[in-house]
Amino acid sequence: MNYKLMLRMLGRTLQLEALCLLLPLLVALIYREDPRPFFFTILPVGLLGTVLARLHSKSEFFSREGFTVVALIWMVLSFFGALPFWFSGEFASFADCLFEIVSGFTTSGATILTDIERLPRGILFWRSFASWIGGMGVLLFTLAFLPKVGGRTQVLVHAEVPGPIATKLVPRTVHSSQILYLMYFVLTGAEILAFLLAGLPLYDAVVTTFACVCTGGFSVMNASLAAYGSAACEVIAIVFMLLGSLNFTLFFLVLTGRAKQALGSDELKFFLGAVGVVSLLVFVNILPLYDTPGHALRDAVFQVTSIISTSGFSTTDYNLWPTFSQTLLVLLMFVGGCSGSTAGSIKCGRILLLLRCSKRSILRLSHPRAVRVVKLDGKTVDEETLRSVFSFFTCFFLLLGLGCVVVSLDGYSLTTSFTAALGCLSNVGPGLDGVGPMASFAPLSGFSKLFLSLFMLVGRLEIFPILLLLQPSTWRRS
Amino acid sequence: MNYKLMLRMLGRTLQLEALCLLLPLLVALIYREDPRPFFFTILPVGLLGTVLARLHSKSEFFSREGFTVVALIWMVLSFFGALPFWFSGEFASFADCLFEIVSGFTTSGATILTDIERLPRGILFWRSFASWIGGMGVLLFTLAFLPKVGGRTQVLVHAEVPGPIATKLVPRTVHSSQILYLMYFVLTGAEILAFLLAGLPLYDAVVTTFACVCTGGFSVMNASLAAYGSAACEVIAIVFMLLGSLNFTLFFLVLTGRAKQALGSDELKFFLGAVGVVSLLVFVNILPLYDTPGHALRDAVFQVTSIISTSGFSTTDYNLWPTFSQTLLVLLMFVGGCSGSTAGSIKCGRILLLLRCSKRSILRLSHPRAVRVVKLDGKTVDEETLRSVFSFFTCFFLLLGLGCVVVSLDGYSLTTSFTAALGCLSNVGPGLDGVGPMASFAPLSGFSKLFLSLFMLVGRLEIFPILLLLQPSTWRRS
Repeated sequence: MNYKLMLRMLGRTLQLEALCLLLPLLVALIYREDPRPFFFTILPVGLLGTVLARLHSKSEFFSREGFTVVALIWMVLSFFGALPFWFSGEFASFADCLFEIVSGFTTSGATILTDIERLPRGILFWRSFASWIGGMGVLLFTLAFLPKVGGRTQVLVHAEVPGPIATKLVPRTVHSSQILYLMYFVLTGAEILAFLLAGLPLYDAVVTTFACVCTGGFSVMNASLAAYGSAACEVIAIVFMLLGSLNFTLFFLVLTGRAKQALGSDELKFFLGAVGVVSLLVFVNILPLYDTPGHALRDAVFQVTSIISTSGFSTTDYNLWPTFSQTLLVLLMFVGGCSGSTAGSIKCGRILLLLRCSKRSILRLSHPRAVRVVKLDGKTVDEETLRSVFSFFTCFFLLLGLGCVVVSLDGYSLTTSFTAALGCLSNVGPGLDGVGPMASFAPLSGFSKLFLSLFMLVGRLEIFPILLLLQPSTWRRS
Repeated sequence: MNYKLMLRMLGRTLQLEALCLLLPLLVALIYREDPRPFFFTILPVGLLGTVLARLHSKSEFFSREGFTVVALIWMVLSFFGALPFWFSGEFASFADCLFEIVSGFTTSGATILTDIERLPRGILFWRSFASWIGGMGVLLFTLAFLPKVGGRTQVLVHAEVPGPIATKLVPRTVHSSQILYLMYFVLTGAEILAFLLAGLPLYDAVVTTFACVCTGGFSVMNASLAAYGSAACEVIAIVFMLLGSLNFTLFFLVLTGRAKQALGSDELKFFLGAVGVVSLLVFVNILPLYDTPGHALRDAVFQVTSIISTSGFSTTDYNLWPTFSQTLLVLLMFVGGCSGSTAGSIKCGRILLLLRCSKRSILRLSHPRAVRVVKLDGKTVDEETLRSVFSFFTCFFLLLGLGCVVVSLDGYSLTTSFTAALGCLSNVGPGLDGVGPMASFAPLSGFSKLFLSLFMLVGRLEIFPILLLLQPSTWRRS
């Protein structure tokens, strides 16, 4: 392992985190709030980052360093990112601070806050801004600032871009990352503008956009988006949660005049099909609870979109919906958006491949000698990728089982511990029952909160990098 | 498809079912109960069987015919096996009769009966005897009676013997099946004897053994095995549920002096390890609820064994246990016993392979070019088998999701619909909450009962054969 280079990368990232913290500091100053929580964080983070970034190292850099450094960067960023919360004195324990910032960086949107509106605006801004930063991946975000390591940055991108197959946008990684940022900035600007037109105050428009375009789910209101009581805001959120769940390479294809190719994507059709079908089923199921079909339809589409995009916003307490709708929402927590998006969970592309592989295994029973390949978008998917998708699916369920057992030690209901673990691993955020849309993770034990923080990181990094850290062979010097 | 040969096989199986029904008829006569439910079934079943068995056919027989006929045999046997229940007038609907007999044949042990002790002894005998028949697989049971089809019977055995890899005991299938029967008979005799020595009446000893040695779980008492209030009976049941969950080829190895080879089985170690570790965790967790540690230990080991063996007997209402223990029991429902046993669910062998494959995928991240094989018992497992195991795992979870949605339409709690679907798919039987150990499936809708009956068959036949029936290509004439 090239530890020095890894430390140098960590240093660069910390420098960047210190820079990012200037923005919430500015917000705190504008609203005449106590700026010290940010000062006390920026100084040591900036100093430590500068010291580490000056380390000299060889440029040797292999896959395992790539995956390890990505995992470590998320952990270190989270630790230091929790400091403003801690210094603000608004949080009960450091475990709470860590849970909240990890939930931000991983765009989960699970919260331990019970009275959000009580908090200073600067602190809430940092919370939402962290999920915006996390949205595109801390690493893709810092890619341009990393020390040059030959052609090896592709390794980092592969560890970061969510989904089964990393599609190169353009050959040079740095160039691709710039295109991704540009699209992300455009989406962010468009959503802020839309919220302003819908009548939201500037502050609310900005922080809600930060948590929405990255499919995060943090709101600055206790009642989440329901607090604004605005149908327009809900529709805007639906549109941008959907956009945030699409493979960003599709936008690039559309922009470069290849819309037909983009619309032909198997995964896109599967994702939109799932949103449509499940929204319809939920709509029919909850209709008797509503005064007007319009309101029922809006709530159905909103909750389905919020959960399949792994956002976790809410406009209603679906804890009160019939079991059938709740079951559908829980199943959507396993699905997630498209690969190459800011959404979490298993993702539509993987599920499509799993379905096609399973069909192949079943057909093999009747024709054992036939050779069949599995295709996606008309292209053959190699067996190594399929094995990796299967392994991902297996690890997802094994970890989920472990998570349920750990959280169940707190003694809440089966539904609570199951959806708490699932909500964190899938980066959806809220679950049902005790951790439902109108509840919070506050009552859980400190141990559960720390465990679930790690769980959110595991989910966000698509499981393997964190499990790789646990292998002794990763830490041996080669 | 060679339909005539398939019909002939169905005919032979029906003849055998008519023969089997003579035993409960005898029990009904001994206890001076109404014998007509059995008469009215035996006559048409025997007649239809004889007509079908006389069909002339070509002996061409391929894999898809094998899988199809196995699935059809289970369905047809269940339909006719439900008739005595229907004629008895003790069941509310034919859906109830079908659910109960399928639960028997598939050794699930889920019941729609709320007052079991009210039923005639002949009817209850047939219910338990059906699970004993199901235990070794209707087809292995009838193998010797099937028309000769060249060397093709291996295809049938492969469809029937549960687990990822069918190990041949001895080259000739008919010979292996006879050895399996012999061991099954010996286990059955030994358990009846043990129950008699423990003080159970002959009838109870026989019917409980029938449901225990096959890891079924039907009891003739409303309170399941708790009704006997006998520690000895519980220990006997634990021992035979464990034996029924082991790969039967291990017994054969032990009998032929290869005990060392048998004890070295990776799957055996994994299974016994899981039973030991989870029993200990549950014991520690429930200890405060009990007067004596001995009683807590017995209940912990009993419930863990009952669920991992997919039996579903109970000696206590674990609906009242802490969430931690309940979570562990639910996870065990996914595990099941060893391959080549009478247990259901995913099975330890598959889970071991899934773990090893996943580890390989994770290690590939750091050493992408290294070639690694996955081994079981020191032997390399081929990639096709691994793919099939992964596909099985995927289909298990996809079907489970579907099952949860269907049962949730009845509007019971999330835990009820989830564990009802899981209990049936894994052939454990009872679940938690509304379908807990002291409850029954009676309140569910007729549609749910029919759906769950199919689900038990799907689980018992290890998913693929039933899904193969749904492929249009299966039904095309070649």
